[in-house]
Amino acid sequence: MVKHFSVIKRDSSTKGRLGRLVTSHGVVETPCFMPVGTQGTVKAMLPRDLRELGCQILLGNTYHLYLRPGHELIRRLGGLHRFMSWDGPILTDSGGYQVFSLGAMRKITEDGARFQSHLDGSAHLLTPEKAVEIQEALGSDIAMILDECIAHDAARDYVQSSTARTIRWAKRCLDARSQADQLMFGIIQGGLFDDLRRWCVDEMAPMAFDGFAVGGLGVGEGEEQLNAVGSFTAQLLPEDKPRYLMGVGRPQDIVNAVGAGFDMFDCVIPTRNARNGTLFTWQGKINIKRAEFANDARPLDPSCGCYCCQNFSRAYLRHLYLAGEILSSQLNSLHNLYFYHRLMDKCREAIRTGRSELWPQWLEADANP
Amino acid sequence: MVKHFSVIKRDSSTKGRLGRLVTSHGVVETPCFMPVGTQGTVKAMLPRDLRELGCQILLGNTYHLYLRPGHELIRRLGGLHRFMSWDGPILTDSGGYQVFSLGAMRKITEDGARFQSHLDGSAHLLTPEKAVEIQEALGSDIAMILDECIAHDAARDYVQSSTARTIRWAKRCLDARSQADQLMFGIIQGGLFDDLRRWCVDEMAPMAFDGFAVGGLGVGEGEEQLNAVGSFTAQLLPEDKPRYLMGVGRPQDIVNAVGAGFDMFDCVIPTRNARNGTLFTWQGKINIKRAEFANDARPLDPSCGCYCCQNFSRAYLRHLYLAGEILSSQLNSLHNLYFYHRLMDKCREAIRTGRSELWPQWLEADANP
Repeated sequence: MVKHFSVIKRDSSTKGRLGRLVTSHGVVETPCFMPVGTQGTVKAMLPRDLRELGCQILLGNTYHLYLRPGHELIRRLGGLHRFMSWDGPILTDSGGYQVFSLGAMRKITEDGARFQSHLDGSAHLLTPEKAVEIQEALGSDIAMILDECIAHDAARDYVQSSTARTIRWAKRCLDARSQADQLMFGIIQGGLFDDLRRWCVDEMAPMAFDGFAVGGLGVGEGEEQLNAVGSFTAQLLPEDKPRYLMGVGRPQDIVNAVGAGFDMFDCVIPTRNARNGTLFTWQGKINIKRAEFANDARPLDPSCGCYCCQNFSRAYLRHLYLAGEILSSQLNSLHNLYFYHRLMDKCREAIRTGRSELWPQWLEADANP
Repeated sequence: MVKHFSVIKRDSSTKGRLGRLVTSHGVVETPCFMPVGTQGTVKAMLPRDLRELGCQILLGNTYHLYLRPGHELIRRLGGLHRFMSWDGPILTDSGGYQVFSLGAMRKITEDGARFQSHLDGSAHLLTPEKAVEIQEALGSDIAMILDECIAHDAARDYVQSSTARTIRWAKRCLDARSQADQLMFGIIQGGLFDDLRRWCVDEMAPMAFDGFAVGGLGVGEGEEQLNAVGSFTAQLLPEDKPRYLMGVGRPQDIVNAVGAGFDMFDCVIPTRNARNGTLFTWQGKINIKRAEFANDARPLDPSCGCYCCQNFSRAYLRHLYLAGEILSSQLNSLHNLYFYHRLMDKCREAIRTGRSELWPQWLEADANP
């Protein structure tokens, strides 16, 4: 079996590691951040602008693409890479997270998840086999198993039975695989219960997965639990396979998780916040709507090298936001994604050099301009 | 007085001319198209992408920028070029067209136009002097006089008295100028009456304008009247100054007007149509929403060299449109503006070579895919 992942270096002061993940569409240096391309596009970003800011790998959403335009259509058109004109690696989720977010519009059985489309109310059944079939049609480099993302406040009994089902579904996903060049990651559930997390890892680690994700975190459990359960679970996972903390998160969450030994991240925060006018700087977050920026000729972050900061003032960005201009979403997304990619650069640099003072410092508090 | 405009070549088979317009921010080859940057941005376009597609000069809207974020703010921040990070030439309109579009919310007197802001209902008075002051604060390369854009079905008496006022306002605008490096264009009104158009030219041509626009066309009078009045008026205008047909228009209108001797054009059609999913190809217009494109792996226009056509299929563009993705507006705007700029390239090439077969052929009819 080809070795898809190698740890290049381990950090001396944390559990962080520098890695190299080989996919059909190229190599990814880890720790890495994956911008979210929900409907076949990272919102408001041209693929060439993603490349320019250093994006290595994207995440695609199986649920959305399955419903619209449909995975068979995308297959006929040459797969998701060709469809969205992104020739780098793509990881697809299994659709589980979106389906389980539908609440009353879905029902879980051993077979899979029955749900109604949020677009037209049509009925669908997402089974582990179907999740694999869709992801193979999309042609992503990395497929995820179908799992249930459990609410953070679920009772222990439910967490246990749901996790048991996710383990059974994991096996079914592996059995359903037909594409040798598509990696597949297992997903560890178990809620906030260390013993259930350990049990899930014990069951899944021996399976023939190419990597493991930790799911069910960053869903409202709070920073303390996120860090505690995340770092506990990371250390249970195989050393020689990539570890992906799903859906997390804020810059400091990511830095903490890199220090705990996670290698891969995705989150809508940089792009969603961008469209809402919340922008990341190395001095903290900025809400560009605020009146204090009306006259502010400075760039968002004077230390930032992105196209937005190199060319536009806070006053202009505020104006675009208030005027409801599309360019607001474009420039803000470009900046926030640039920020997240530099955050990952800094994490990798800190591990590479072993200089702990290089770990990115970032304050959640609003920037004091 | 510095000569800002020179005619390089006259077409042998039409009245078209190849020209060169020198502004404070660079030279513009004419005939040229000016994308409209209503609120300090050409909607959905990064300035660097405008440059890439060959954009030479932008149009800025005085009315919108005066109301939000305010011309004094833009002046303090270094002017409109700096504000929107466009270092090429900018022409600003006078705000008149938008004010007169407000209908019941405005009242015209000899002094100027009283109007209520469409944003907050606040009361404002736009005089010829104020229009010049605002445009000087914005720091555009070319300012337009305040005029009244007359409805195409206005009675002759009204057209005559309104045009007389526009002529008086033209004089006041010239008197109000304080910036030597800002060119100023007069605007010819006169409705659909040839004698009133001639009279307006006779009155305004001797004034110290750097160019002349023809206004009040492309406002519902129909293609025949547009061509007839436009071409009649163009021929009355001084040979040695640029001629700008305001707000026109569709590709074939522009080609006709170039042949009639016009040098400059602006229109929201390429960008507005783009956002509505109507796309220009050399085979005609395409409505990307149509079901027939769902499976269409071809680019919008196989002969087009734009980033959109080089990278994406009609099926993908349809998907983005139906999914309401911002990238839809971005890619569609990029393509339509690329098309308009190639249209102008072709017009210039036809005049330059004197080969009438090079004049762009374009069908208004929908493309037959």
